[in-house]
Amino acid sequence: MVTTIDLNCDVGEGFGAWRIADDEELLGVVTAANVACGFHAGDPRTMREVCESAVAQGVAIGAHVGYRDLAGFGRRFLDVAPGELVDDLLYQLGALDAIAGSAGGDVRYVKPHGALYNAIATHDGHAAAVVEAVWQYDPQLPILGQPGSRLFAHAKEAGLATVAEAFADRGYSPDGRLLPRNMPGAVLTDPEEVAKRCVRLVTEGEVVAVDGTVVELRAGSLCVHSDTPGAVALAGAARTALREAGVELRSFA
Amino acid sequence: MVTTIDLNCDVGEGFGAWRIADDEELLGVVTAANVACGFHAGDPRTMREVCESAVAQGVAIGAHVGYRDLAGFGRRFLDVAPGELVDDLLYQLGALDAIAGSAGGDVRYVKPHGALYNAIATHDGHAAAVVEAVWQYDPQLPILGQPGSRLFAHAKEAGLATVAEAFADRGYSPDGRLLPRNMPGAVLTDPEEVAKRCVRLVTEGEVVAVDGTVVELRAGSLCVHSDTPGAVALAGAARTALREAGVELRSFA
Amino acid sequence: MVTTIDLNCDVGEGFGAWRIADDEELLGVVTAANVACGFHAGDPRTMREVCESAVAQGVAIGAHVGYRDLAGFGRRFLDVAPGELVDDLLYQLGALDAIAGSAGGDVRYVKPHGALYNAIATHDGHAAAVVEAVWQYDPQLPILGQPGSRLFAHAKEAGLATVAEAFADRGYSPDGRLLPRNMPGAVLTDPEEVAKRCVRLVTEGEVVAVDGTVVELRAGSLCVHSDTPGAVALAGAARTALREAGVELRSFA
Amino acid sequence: MVTTIDLNCDVGEGFGAWRIADDEELLGVVTAANVACGFHAGDPRTMREVCESAVAQGVAIGAHVGYRDLAGFGRRFLDVAPGELVDDLLYQLGALDAIAGSAGGDVRYVKPHGALYNAIATHDGHAAAVVEAVWQYDPQLPILGQPGSRLFAHAKEAGLATVAEAFADRGYSPDGRLLPRNMPGAVLTDPEEVAKRCVRLVTEGEVVAVDGTVVELRAGSLCVHSDTPGAVALAGAARTALREAGVELRSFA
Repeated sequence: MVTTIDLNCDVGEGFGAWRIADDEELLGVVTAANVACGFHAGDPRTMREVCESAVAQGVAIGAHVGYRDLAGFGRRFLDVAPGELVDDLLYQLGALDAIAGSAGGDVRYVKPHGALYNAIATHDGHAAAVVEAVWQYDPQLPILGQPGSRLFAHAKEAGLATVAEAFADRGYSPDGRLLPRNMPGAVLTDPEEVAKRCVRLVTEGEVVAVDGTVVELRAGSLCVHSDTPGAVALAGAARTALREAGVELRSFA
Repeated sequence: MVTTIDLNCDVGEGFGAWRIADDEELLGVVTAANVACGFHAGDPRTMREVCESAVAQGVAIGAHVGYRDLAGFGRRFLDVAPGELVDDLLYQLGALDAIAGSAGGDVRYVKPHGALYNAIATHDGHAAAVVEAVWQYDPQLPILGQPGSRLFAHAKEAGLATVAEAFADRGYSPDGRLLPRNMPGAVLTDPEEVAKRCVRLVTEGEVVAVDGTVVELRAGSLCVHSDTPGAVALAGAARTALREAGVELRSFA
Repeated sequence: MVTTIDLNCDVGEGFGAWRIADDEELLGVVTAANVACGFHAGDPRTMREVCESAVAQGVAIGAHVGYRDLAGFGRRFLDVAPGELVDDLLYQLGALDAIAGSAGGDVRYVKPHGALYNAIATHDGHAAAVVEAVWQYDPQLPILGQPGSRLFAHAKEAGLATVAEAFADRGYSPDGRLLPRNMPGAVLTDPEEVAKRCVRLVTEGEVVAVDGTVVELRAGSLCVHSDTPGAVALAGAARTALREAGVELRSFA
Repeated sequence: MVTTIDLNCDVGEGFGAWRIADDEELLGVVTAANVACGFHAGDPRTMREVCESAVAQGVAIGAHVGYRDLAGFGRRFLDVAPGELVDDLLYQLGALDAIAGSAGGDVRYVKPHGALYNAIATHDGHAAAVVEAVWQYDPQLPILGQPGSRLFAHAKEAGLATVAEAFADRGYSPDGRLLPRNMPGAVLTDPEEVAKRCVRLVTEGEVVAVDGTVVELRAGSLCVHSDTPGAVALAGAARTALREAGVELRSFA
């Protein structure tokens, strides 16, 4: 039996004349593309380009939905009413799906972005809004996110599929949470180290926390960041090491 | 044989806290609702409210697509590249469809708004972009617009259905064009006069121009404006007079 | 000695084609105009119109600054970094001042709007950011706001002038706070009652709370809302009653 | 007598998380910084950073004003009413001045951006609007732009100072106009060639057109682009060559 894993990363996070990552290169490495839908980043033209590239390279398209906040890149909590958040999310889902469709693909999963991602670890109203939006749009769509979050609790209650992700290039605390970005060891940049962690995460279901503790962590997808220098190299190193360890890279979606 | 006609008007043209028309009342009168999709007006919450009301009242939902220009209400020509315009329109179509779907409806036709509507009477690049977007999204969707426009020429070439509209409350020149808004007789506000014109347009296929000339004008839909004082009264007068003349009000969509 | 009081209200809260209040009428009644600066509402053209009208009617212009959130009308908390908030506020101040200047006026005071107004009652980072922005822009500008707020604490520490406001048309709790909008008695709509409260507030420095308790409340300005039906009538009733009680209406600014 | 020249470039053209150029490096080379004001690019935080850097390096701050079009980077013609354009420009001028002021500087000149820059070569309404806005804001501010444009005609009529600019890294046609970007020879990337052109432009007032014709061109400022690869190297080469030719780099502002 072959072990498989999904490799996801954020793409299409430009807007108009602006670009953040080398999407084309990243799409050559990952199996799932979290495509920005215009609220935190991503204009329609950028969305099309990245969808066409994803389709051409056989990468699954996911809706990377966020708060309406271009100026803050969706990284600032916005106290939107849950009912309005449902509509904001449906809007993004439909918009991306139309463009994915014209590129020969379709939306296969949903992943919340930035401050929304962080909020729904604990914020019941926003977590339930994400679940409600996905359920209204297409109850077959899996949600990619953080295990142990309120998001996952609400999704399970509603009967939506969830896929847990682990972070290839982020440090963990002994209780299995991500280290805050401003702490030492929070962000890993050594391709070799990242590659080793990925293999261990996938083949043994565990990660070594910042203090040396071995933490159990079972994930259906590994997230590699796209907006850091060396992102493509990191993702490529992970991909190569996983393959050498006999792991097949394949999207869950 | 019963003559039928569609009555369309613009709705959902608020944004956030702002409203422009009494959508709820208007949806009780018309048969087709041109719903703003977020680029010239229309936030996701407003879109949902108007879609739910349209579904409840049996009114067909159309995508009222425009240039990306909230500050100008889509009334200013924007020299966007045709390829980018295709993507902007797909984005709006998908966004509205997702919200219409969650309200129990779906997008049944497309009507360009404001400066885009005016531009594609003569602008080949933008006219072709509208056709391309609709064709990519759903080649079964009819386009509601101005007969004689470049839009209709491109639509026919592509094999898309078109529905010609006439304006119930606007004056016409002897050559069958709309009078510019700043000319005398350009905007009609007397419900009785508007009602009579509607009946003549539908039953005889003609309209009396500003100089008294009788102009032939065959339309599949009559547009009543929503953003003028007395809009609901005008639309209601038209509806009543048409029914009394034995015309059935039914959407083409 | 003549008692004087300032009457302030929010104006210019339209955007593009949208309007919310009858600014022209309101500016005939109040002495201070809180002009929206483009972040929660207010486009440059609207700002000019309201500034010209304020100058013509001798009404003081204040900068009504808010979070960057047109879709939410600035009524949703946005977790912006305090340093960025300082810059967002400076931007709004300068923008309004340029337009006020071209209308023959200038910015005479600053009043935070909506969710920002509420947040800085308790949020130290945002309260300090408002003070920092005003201090950087012009340390002579007074801040109009809520007595007892963290905003006022930071302003006093920095040596900025503050003007406390009371609400003519809102209910108070026995501890001197505003009743939340969803509670009974939170919003007053009877012109006569509002007028009486205004007179008592100004001449005796007290208000009757929702439970009958008499609460001491000393304010340099009374706020009348502009976005409720009957706003102009309420403000007019307050103005008339105050004058009849021998109070002179004059801006603090 | 020492010949002097100004070297200007566009900076601050990021937005939120997005960056386009290496502003810090560019500000070490030029003498005048065209700072984006938030309508085509430039959020308040970015504006502050670039203003602080400009002040620290003794570079003059100019307002790089444009159409309201973040999605199009101000590169698409927008048919805004001239009166509204005046207000849009005043808004940008005031906003930048407030932030420049808090950074210890102030706005010293105005340069239109992108599609507005191109439009006002021939568009009388928009050219007059730029002049009107500058005149209302501060009639002492010079306008940096294209000689022979309608902008310059209107500015001269109004009595505003103008500064003509030439492009260090762009090809010219024999009639002294810029070659369209899509033509061969339109964009120069060889630092040595650019440097030589700069010296000839400044010391002899002429440039060699694409067909070899020598064209007279007298400019008070040379523009170096910031958004092309090698921008800093190009600007640095120009600076060095000019100095070696005995030209002093000094802002006109």
